[in-house]
Amino acid sequence: MGVTLVGAGPGSVDLLTLRAAEVLRRADVVVHDRLVDPRILDLMRPDAERIDVGKRPGTSHSQALINDLLVSLGRSGRNIVRLKGGDPFVFGRGGEEILALREADVAVSVVPGLSSALVAPLAAGIPVTHRNVARGVLVVTGHTVDEDAGDFARLALSGITLVVLMGVELRGAIAEQLIAGGLSAQTPTAIVERACRDDQRVSTCSLDQLGVTAAEAPAVIVIGDVVSVLRADMSDLLTGATA
Amino acid sequence: MGVTLVGAGPGSVDLLTLRAAEVLRRADVVVHDRLVDPRILDLMRPDAERIDVGKRPGTSHSQALINDLLVSLGRSGRNIVRLKGGDPFVFGRGGEEILALREADVAVSVVPGLSSALVAPLAAGIPVTHRNVARGVLVVTGHTVDEDAGDFARLALSGITLVVLMGVELRGAIAEQLIAGGLSAQTPTAIVERACRDDQRVSTCSLDQLGVTAAEAPAVIVIGDVVSVLRADMSDLLTGATA
Repeated sequence: MGVTLVGAGPGSVDLLTLRAAEVLRRADVVVHDRLVDPRILDLMRPDAERIDVGKRPGTSHSQALINDLLVSLGRSGRNIVRLKGGDPFVFGRGGEEILALREADVAVSVVPGLSSALVAPLAAGIPVTHRNVARGVLVVTGHTVDEDAGDFARLALSGITLVVLMGVELRGAIAEQLIAGGLSAQTPTAIVERACRDDQRVSTCSLDQLGVTAAEAPAVIVIGDVVSVLRADMSDLLTGATA
Repeated sequence: MGVTLVGAGPGSVDLLTLRAAEVLRRADVVVHDRLVDPRILDLMRPDAERIDVGKRPGTSHSQALINDLLVSLGRSGRNIVRLKGGDPFVFGRGGEEILALREADVAVSVVPGLSSALVAPLAAGIPVTHRNVARGVLVVTGHTVDEDAGDFARLALSGITLVVLMGVELRGAIAEQLIAGGLSAQTPTAIVERACRDDQRVSTCSLDQLGVTAAEAPAVIVIGDVVSVLRADMSDLLTGATA
């Protein structure tokens, strides 16, 4: 009973964890965002209820409304699953939903999911860490960039791979600030569009060309020498596994 | 055919992805590291071969030997799985194995896994990102720390959660450098020992107490204001989901 926050991973149903699949099978109600792969809902019992709170053009569900809905459902005595893309705690606002549920004394638990922050690079054949190339990885959102050049400039760290989610629109400003912060203009950079989907596309460029390289959301931007470790012909790595 | 690198996730068999489980079921040979949960191998066919290359006291398999083994198996025409803890591309040295296999013209593909870098915080009830608290997360290894104070000092980034893997031994030096770099001595800090196992333990302290707070490997250290967002009583979040 109560509410279980479940990470749906980057899209494909087979990138759910076994635990997430089992929790979905037992659910009475699933409250989900816009899903990349509708087959995920086929795991549910046919009589289970589905509530779509994903954003569509012309509509919007505020986080406060979603929190209220979860609290109300959580008090019903049914088995509620809150299904979120990626991982609930990596840019998933899961923390906010848990705080709301706890405040309302609703039992809550959480099941992790694969975050596109790490899976998108893998799907493009990019190891986010690699010996003598990158000893760490920094994941940030790029949907806002302060005009203060320090915002991304301070994230220019040698030997650390930078992964930017939601950064397509402001990619030019992000690149500029990173170069101002000390990253080489030649730093290998990849744009992974629609990661893990059939129409995934990977573009590579140098960091100073990021702003003028075509890209459309949703996309994950990867910046660092790891981009060229396995070469471009590795972008079939993940799809190869599904064959 | 060829070799498929598969991420086994943080331990529990039910934190494998559906795709990883399916690939294991089809394997002729599985080359695995030391596994937290031996039930993972129960997914294999009974007649499939298992090769343990995990390190044990008094033994060691160098990465070069593992690469050679994979190349040799990959040429056998059988279906080879290389099973690695966590994710193959997040401190998994998967990139090195792929380079060796590609050089030898062996077909290779990869299946992502949950990295303990993100799952250990979740299992401890810590959202690595949280609105108005942390807009990003930096994951690094701490098994070496240059005496040059700049090594970790440069990773002291406000508003970014820091996750340190393999940092138990040098946690005092890491904390010192981070404080020298500008992080508050009072920054909330958590040590997650044996994440996701039945005997998981979570300790919290302020950053300046990290060096004198008891900890034993394997552990993941989480540093940042997100540590106190959901309070300590959230460490049952993940285990709650398994009940």
